[in-house]
Amino acid sequence: MNPQVGIIMGSQSDLEIMKGASEMLKQLNVSHEMTIVSAHRTPDRMRTYALGAKARGIKVIIAGAGGAAHLPGMVAAYTTLPVIGVPVKSSNSIDGWDSVLSILQMPAGVPVATVALNGGKNAGILAAQMIGAFDSTVAQRLADFKKELEKQVVDMVTKLKE
Amino acid sequence: MNPQVGIIMGSQSDLEIMKGASEMLKQLNVSHEMTIVSAHRTPDRMRTYALGAKARGIKVIIAGAGGAAHLPGMVAAYTTLPVIGVPVKSSNSIDGWDSVLSILQMPAGVPVATVALNGGKNAGILAAQMIGAFDSTVAQRLADFKKELEKQVVDMVTKLKE
Amino acid sequence: MNPQVGIIMGSQSDLEIMKGASEMLKQLNVSHEMTIVSAHRTPDRMRTYALGAKARGIKVIIAGAGGAAHLPGMVAAYTTLPVIGVPVKSSNSIDGWDSVLSILQMPAGVPVATVALNGGKNAGILAAQMIGAFDSTVAQRLADFKKELEKQVVDMVTKLKE
Amino acid sequence: MNPQVGIIMGSQSDLEIMKGASEMLKQLNVSHEMTIVSAHRTPDRMRTYALGAKARGIKVIIAGAGGAAHLPGMVAAYTTLPVIGVPVKSSNSIDGWDSVLSILQMPAGVPVATVALNGGKNAGILAAQMIGAFDSTVAQRLADFKKELEKQVVDMVTKLKE
Amino acid sequence: MNPQVGIIMGSQSDLEIMKGASEMLKQLNVSHEMTIVSAHRTPDRMRTYALGAKARGIKVIIAGAGGAAHLPGMVAAYTTLPVIGVPVKSSNSIDGWDSVLSILQMPAGVPVATVALNGGKNAGILAAQMIGAFDSTVAQRLADFKKELEKQVVDMVTKLKE
Amino acid sequence: MNPQVGIIMGSQSDLEIMKGASEMLKQLNVSHEMTIVSAHRTPDRMRTYALGAKARGIKVIIAGAGGAAHLPGMVAAYTTLPVIGVPVKSSNSIDGWDSVLSILQMPAGVPVATVALNGGKNAGILAAQMIGAFDSTVAQRLADFKKELEKQVVDMVTKLKE
Amino acid sequence: MNPQVGIIMGSQSDLEIMKGASEMLKQLNVSHEMTIVSAHRTPDRMRTYALGAKARGIKVIIAGAGGAAHLPGMVAAYTTLPVIGVPVKSSNSIDGWDSVLSILQMPAGVPVATVALNGGKNAGILAAQMIGAFDSTVAQRLADFKKELEKQVVDMVTKLKE
Amino acid sequence: MNPQVGIIMGSQSDLEIMKGASEMLKQLNVSHEMTIVSAHRTPDRMRTYALGAKARGIKVIIAGAGGAAHLPGMVAAYTTLPVIGVPVKSSNSIDGWDSVLSILQMPAGVPVATVALNGGKNAGILAAQMIGAFDSTVAQRLADFKKELEKQVVDMVTKLKE
Repeated sequence: MNPQVGIIMGSQSDLEIMKGASEMLKQLNVSHEMTIVSAHRTPDRMRTYALGAKARGIKVIIAGAGGAAHLPGMVAAYTTLPVIGVPVKSSNSIDGWDSVLSILQMPAGVPVATVALNGGKNAGILAAQMIGAFDSTVAQRLADFKKELEKQVVDMVTKLKE
Repeated sequence: MNPQVGIIMGSQSDLEIMKGASEMLKQLNVSHEMTIVSAHRTPDRMRTYALGAKARGIKVIIAGAGGAAHLPGMVAAYTTLPVIGVPVKSSNSIDGWDSVLSILQMPAGVPVATVALNGGKNAGILAAQMIGAFDSTVAQRLADFKKELEKQVVDMVTKLKE
Repeated sequence: MNPQVGIIMGSQSDLEIMKGASEMLKQLNVSHEMTIVSAHRTPDRMRTYALGAKARGIKVIIAGAGGAAHLPGMVAAYTTLPVIGVPVKSSNSIDGWDSVLSILQMPAGVPVATVALNGGKNAGILAAQMIGAFDSTVAQRLADFKKELEKQVVDMVTKLKE
Repeated sequence: MNPQVGIIMGSQSDLEIMKGASEMLKQLNVSHEMTIVSAHRTPDRMRTYALGAKARGIKVIIAGAGGAAHLPGMVAAYTTLPVIGVPVKSSNSIDGWDSVLSILQMPAGVPVATVALNGGKNAGILAAQMIGAFDSTVAQRLADFKKELEKQVVDMVTKLKE
Repeated sequence: MNPQVGIIMGSQSDLEIMKGASEMLKQLNVSHEMTIVSAHRTPDRMRTYALGAKARGIKVIIAGAGGAAHLPGMVAAYTTLPVIGVPVKSSNSIDGWDSVLSILQMPAGVPVATVALNGGKNAGILAAQMIGAFDSTVAQRLADFKKELEKQVVDMVTKLKE
Repeated sequence: MNPQVGIIMGSQSDLEIMKGASEMLKQLNVSHEMTIVSAHRTPDRMRTYALGAKARGIKVIIAGAGGAAHLPGMVAAYTTLPVIGVPVKSSNSIDGWDSVLSILQMPAGVPVATVALNGGKNAGILAAQMIGAFDSTVAQRLADFKKELEKQVVDMVTKLKE
Repeated sequence: MNPQVGIIMGSQSDLEIMKGASEMLKQLNVSHEMTIVSAHRTPDRMRTYALGAKARGIKVIIAGAGGAAHLPGMVAAYTTLPVIGVPVKSSNSIDGWDSVLSILQMPAGVPVATVALNGGKNAGILAAQMIGAFDSTVAQRLADFKKELEKQVVDMVTKLKE
Repeated sequence: MNPQVGIIMGSQSDLEIMKGASEMLKQLNVSHEMTIVSAHRTPDRMRTYALGAKARGIKVIIAGAGGAAHLPGMVAAYTTLPVIGVPVKSSNSIDGWDSVLSILQMPAGVPVATVALNGGKNAGILAAQMIGAFDSTVAQRLADFKKELEKQVVDMVTKLKE
């Protein structure tokens, strides 16, 4: 079976953050693939990836990049699939503002669903939510995950009391 | 038939921006509803809306708000549906930074799909893309819309030449 | 006797900063409680806490949170008690701007009394000042504390001279 | 009877914003006074005001100022009363950041309860909340005010439907 | 003869700024062309433009765009020609920061020569300087232009004296 | 003989930066004193210092402070002497923006001569320049210092060549 | 008699702000001159001005500029006189941050006394204060001016009461 | 043979970043020189360097500086050659914003080709691109370098798969 979520990133240096997306999708049992696609160094690889994703059965693309982060927006230019952008705080970043604004401020017509700076995990959850809206098994796992989040707080409350 | 997209906003002053979402969904022929839900003035109305949306058939929630914009994130706290956040530049905003950061920087576990400042239109398109990933009719309309965007540029090119 | 100040925070990771509030209140001999309440992971726990605080005798709520910090503002939505917000600089924060603006920029109708980034101590003092405005014993302790602050400077002056 | 809330501002140009505080207090029936006190042009008037406020029965001071806004923090230096700071966006302000940061970022020991940029109204409500914590009549009026806020939203909902 | 400078922009709304480049090149008598190429709406048109520019005799590409401005960086990904990026302050821009950072903060390997916000004129001059480094006629015109700038100041000095 | 320059700072934690001022003045042989004066913890000590400085023969006051840095501006409120403000990047500072804006953005009528973030050394040089404008011995030492700066560069040039 | 203060600015467009300096110096009866000197368009005129100012009897130079504002810092590079920098918010400025930071953040060795954004008036007062430190007549006028500032507040207080 | 690219920097502390430019030019086999020229400490050395560069055969100047970075802009004032500015994040920088804005925001008439913060390498590539536009050997090396960048990504892809 083909993966439902495609995770791509501009460079190996984004891997630490983007693994968060992969781990969340694994935990929520959503099929996915992960590879490196650079908008600036391999623009045609990016084009091919974006143009072919839908036909391969991909439902959501997660794209992470730092600095002048063009990967999410350019992938969105080539596909009608929803694209989740993860701003990564790279070295020499101006405090992360560059990747946040390069991904978020897309012009009318070509949106990118931006998550928090270094928000790899949340990108994975958001992708699962998009699928869960149409797949009740995934929706149930998300509901369980929400309960787990709640339990974490309850456990912290107990621990703090002691 | 129930609407697939729920558009909510914190105040009537956000209407001008949020109508962009509604108009895009109408153009893409995606069923939707639109109402006002304030996180700070009607927290229980918000809670009820967020808790009930999935059961009513909603697939995506679009939430727009300005300033310390808590509506998108709090709705996301109450539902497993994907939530699209639209930062609105309200009067007395600090250049829009407040709504952008209040919506974008969600903690791990509870994502919000943030679009550009005042990006009502893009929120509508993004919602349609999420649905289009599972509905080929909507996907086709999005593909047509992409061609229209391209045609707009080609028309501008011709006009500039003259 | 019931505590007069309720200190809550979004996560255990905020504890180091929020202990500052607790320590100041202890030093000023103001009764207080401290627990974890997450706006995003336990929204109903937050709701219950905020709705019940006044009846339990709480006079002021101190709420600390980082990133898209919704806890102080949402608690303020549910209570008429004054709420002091402490912006915490979390990991992956955009230099603290996210929590500062998410807490500070509340819309007209629902204020949050915001203190400095990581200002746990000042939140404790501010809560004591609110109580001290109506309780002369606490007011006296605050006056003594002010003298102590002055003495610290005088001691530094002497030390620098040497 | 002496006023319970003292509203001061650095200049007549802050009046438009600071009247919001006065109007809210009037609406909530909390006694108050309003005058101009400049930290930089009348430092001794400020000192006298701050040192004398408590003895005159003032419970809370609201201080608004723009630019390098030193009034709220300096008043806080001279009194143990809670001080609410209102950052005003003056002409030649750097987008309001100057007054926000000058008021918010107080050092440990001397807090200022900061409200949103140009948040005169919220300063009035916050002052009433501090008093309402100890005065059940004011608390009741605040509860009524909260219901009114809710009603505003419900009215907008109805209007939008039509 | 083929033009030496290619001026492109993401949208007709950038024309007012980008005409500055064209006017400067006309004044300095450097051959150029100007058209609209959108990275997000016409990604393949952009690709074709960038891949073909060198062979057509273009020596420098000037690319202007606003918001999440990906045009200059993506063109640079496809060509070895120097690319000058002009950040345009579009409507809904976050004060121009988005286009500035999206253009400036390119990763190692793929530079963009960024000029000031709305710096269309300077982009034209910079392109002429790149050509003037190898073409003494253009260099002479630039030297004359520098004298003209000086003369403007001298004229203002005289006018101020009067 | 009385010192010509008074160096004050808000806290001992500013000493490392402010020693730079003292060292430069020593090197330029300008008499000076250094002590701690806190605007928020010892407002009356500050008032006394500022009001008395001129009569004691002080020609320039250098005031350093961090966060909501009110010391330079409040000293300027109490004296007609020129006041040099040194923004210090304290712990919990929002990247230094708070102290920079709190010192720089003084209202019309009460200027502060602001130097760079952590610019203790430059404050010392600037104070010497103010004195050197009227004292040819100090002016000569400043001219020698300028030559020394030049020599440093020449030495680096030689070292780089090797 | 030669003027004691030299006011220069980068362009005629800075005149409206810089006239504030001239008017304050006139009011305080300090001799001064005013002209246009552009760092970027007339670098040698700037060099000559800066190198010759001291010999002509100038005691302080006030330099105003916008954008990448190099005039104050470069003048400071060429003279041992104190240089006051006035950041001017020019058209196409990024909210004034560019001129503020270009003037303020001078490296160790070459300070510029920076005043608030568009702070022409304060530059005039600061220059007078530097002279007043050594000239008791000017000092007296500054003391009178301070009283006038106070009186303005007192008048506003009276007016507000009515 | 004379070098084609002149690399200058304000201080030895910029060397680590600026070596990136030198290394890229070496790799691309473009002749170059590297030295230290300080705008503020050696303004006349800077003037001489800038005025003489063209006659010595220099085609592009790369200038790196931190803080209030005036070197690139002032060099551009003195020459008609293209000047590439490298904003260096120095110690005591306000997150790099100071050098970025001081270099980028040049006024109309005198452009600087700004690269990313700490973008020494990209400055070297950009200089080579300017030369490669007129020199097919350099253009070929740049095309090879682009392939190498692509290969790096392909290698990372393979490595990630394993």
